[in-house]
Amino acid sequence: MKGKVSQRGLGMPSSPIRRLAGAAREAELRGTTVYRLNIGQPDVPTPPQAIEALRHITRDVLEYSPSEGLESLRVKMAEYYSRCGLDIRPDEIIITTGGSEAVLFAFMACLDPGDEIIIPEPAYANYMAFAISTGARIVPVTTTIADGFRLPPVAEFERLITPRTKGILVCNPNNPTGYIYTRRELEAIAGLASRHGLFLFSDEVYREFCYSDQPFVSVMSLPEVRENAVLIDSVSKRYNECGIRIGALVSRDPEVRANVMKFCQARLSPPLLGQIVAEASVDTPEEYMKEVYDRYLERRDYLIGRINAIPGCHSPMPMGAFYTVASLPVDDADEFCRWCLEEFSHEGATVFMAPASGFYTDREAGRDQVRIAYVHDIPYLAAALDTLEAALRAYPGRKA
Amino acid sequence: MKGKVSQRGLGMPSSPIRRLAGAAREAELRGTTVYRLNIGQPDVPTPPQAIEALRHITRDVLEYSPSEGLESLRVKMAEYYSRCGLDIRPDEIIITTGGSEAVLFAFMACLDPGDEIIIPEPAYANYMAFAISTGARIVPVTTTIADGFRLPPVAEFERLITPRTKGILVCNPNNPTGYIYTRRELEAIAGLASRHGLFLFSDEVYREFCYSDQPFVSVMSLPEVRENAVLIDSVSKRYNECGIRIGALVSRDPEVRANVMKFCQARLSPPLLGQIVAEASVDTPEEYMKEVYDRYLERRDYLIGRINAIPGCHSPMPMGAFYTVASLPVDDADEFCRWCLEEFSHEGATVFMAPASGFYTDREAGRDQVRIAYVHDIPYLAAALDTLEAALRAYPGRKA
Repeated sequence: MKGKVSQRGLGMPSSPIRRLAGAAREAELRGTTVYRLNIGQPDVPTPPQAIEALRHITRDVLEYSPSEGLESLRVKMAEYYSRCGLDIRPDEIIITTGGSEAVLFAFMACLDPGDEIIIPEPAYANYMAFAISTGARIVPVTTTIADGFRLPPVAEFERLITPRTKGILVCNPNNPTGYIYTRRELEAIAGLASRHGLFLFSDEVYREFCYSDQPFVSVMSLPEVRENAVLIDSVSKRYNECGIRIGALVSRDPEVRANVMKFCQARLSPPLLGQIVAEASVDTPEEYMKEVYDRYLERRDYLIGRINAIPGCHSPMPMGAFYTVASLPVDDADEFCRWCLEEFSHEGATVFMAPASGFYTDREAGRDQVRIAYVHDIPYLAAALDTLEAALRAYPGRKA
Repeated sequence: MKGKVSQRGLGMPSSPIRRLAGAAREAELRGTTVYRLNIGQPDVPTPPQAIEALRHITRDVLEYSPSEGLESLRVKMAEYYSRCGLDIRPDEIIITTGGSEAVLFAFMACLDPGDEIIIPEPAYANYMAFAISTGARIVPVTTTIADGFRLPPVAEFERLITPRTKGILVCNPNNPTGYIYTRRELEAIAGLASRHGLFLFSDEVYREFCYSDQPFVSVMSLPEVRENAVLIDSVSKRYNECGIRIGALVSRDPEVRANVMKFCQARLSPPLLGQIVAEASVDTPEEYMKEVYDRYLERRDYLIGRINAIPGCHSPMPMGAFYTVASLPVDDADEFCRWCLEEFSHEGATVFMAPASGFYTDREAGRDQVRIAYVHDIPYLAAALDTLEAALRAYPGRKA
């Protein structure tokens, strides 16, 4: 008799992107070009000196690193935060296996099964996966495309607080919307967190990618949440090294760090080689960062201009990260995205977008929306947008 | 008002080794030499061609790998299993971030909160940490030093089975005891698992280190548990590359793999660089493996000979891995290990051993036992054992 798998796993929704990935591969096998606007894997090379650090490795034994990460990397990261205007000591930084593990361990260390965490949505789909992993419950605050995804008044958060509420999580700059929280919004949330004794988790992995004049505000700079703030960070997007799996969890509360460290010790250590690459990356020259930034900015302006020129399409101007959520004149974006991959092609090509339903707990909320990543060059985006226009003309479920 | 950390984290026992690590560092700061018999970080170099693979890396972008791991690595690992006599297909192998993540994901995918898993103890302490992480409950079956840590009759397992029992976990060769399960023992457990519809998790990361004529038996070779067996594996110990964090979870049950993959997708991908090193390691020449094996064998024979020559000390002959659990003529091994680091030195040196209490849920069961790792060379072991002898002579809590 076979073993029975867990309900925990069975209950974890499979992302619509994952479901469509097979259809995309099949389209390619049929010879169709698939323009991939669905993913966050940039086409930008990793800083060369980061890869050079591997070529010159002198170790004989690739041994465990400390569970909290290499001291030398934590010192470098503290210097980086200092350049960002944040006073963070090396011992307040715990190196994790990607930003993903930082989210998982933040939830493990701060939430018990049945505890609630308030998250503005649309939201990065894997927060839900980590909540299910830890038995916590996500309570959404919906933001709307009509409002440019800005936060609703703090009273809307406050009325969701129950005795089980343990924290609020923001992703800033936001994946999937590209929204950047204003100082006023963050201070309101920070005040709320402080008044109610809640953690304020902030995923700031897109910190370098802010395209507006409005300054980026980290929760680590807000005095109200000096001890309540838990920063989720990652070098993946900053230095285009998603594969090395190096992130960080930062907290000024020794109790949080002590609890997180128990989970860190159980998994022994974060990846040694990724830490070597990350350490070499922190000194990436300003020119590299500026060039990447300019590239994304140009792509963003091009993409949003093109989307808003298509009748019935709308995207707010994303101020950060490299995504936008756009509404399309279709009955159902899940169905439209599937149809593009399975039933449509235009001049031998089609387009792969992420249906926004994966970013909402309320599936209806994003019914006509998709997330589009601008991680490809302008000619690629141009061809993809031409294909999208043709698809919208041909789609049978087009809204009147 | 500060946030309140989770009971889950607070309830996770901190390992006695962790507690003593600070005392060991302080002893070193006082100028005392600390012979570290406590750890599983071998002194053996990583295979040179594995490190060469890094020096010749040609990638420009260190991008995400697939969530299940690189196809090329999974193909290589299937070839390796084939050389071990196991028919395992590449698609039955899921690459994880170390064996640690394989244990965590096995528990996440197969166990729900409140579910029970039967584990012979003494057992690797982090199984408990992963059980707490997932809300599962470990039900111990005690093995004894008097019996050489062999398994009790299968009836002792069977009487522990309740409606919540979902699996049995074995570590083979065993950490901490070095015991290797006999075919008869494994077949009895496999039959039980099959009759009751339980998973049989088997942590076989020390597979290469078997020093007896008795052949090593993998659960993956037992027809009774063809679908129930979940193999936990790692390249860490096999190729002395603990820091690269590459392990694997292997199952022939597509439902298990589908459930595990949801957790894999949530954390995006295993470390890319570690996978490159692991792939280069699978072809490590036989001479390297043989040399490492011979080195451990020689160290084991020396260590166990020395221990059993000390009056009142006893260690069974460990047949695998590179640890043993020994009983010492002391009132309390926790206290003795602490005393060695904080209050004792002999000719400027002391010894750091792992109290066995961390490997038992019943703290009394291993009260006079320690785990000793033989990952250092013979002169180091000789000096460490001289120091241990002196410590036992001087210890005020010596048993009559």
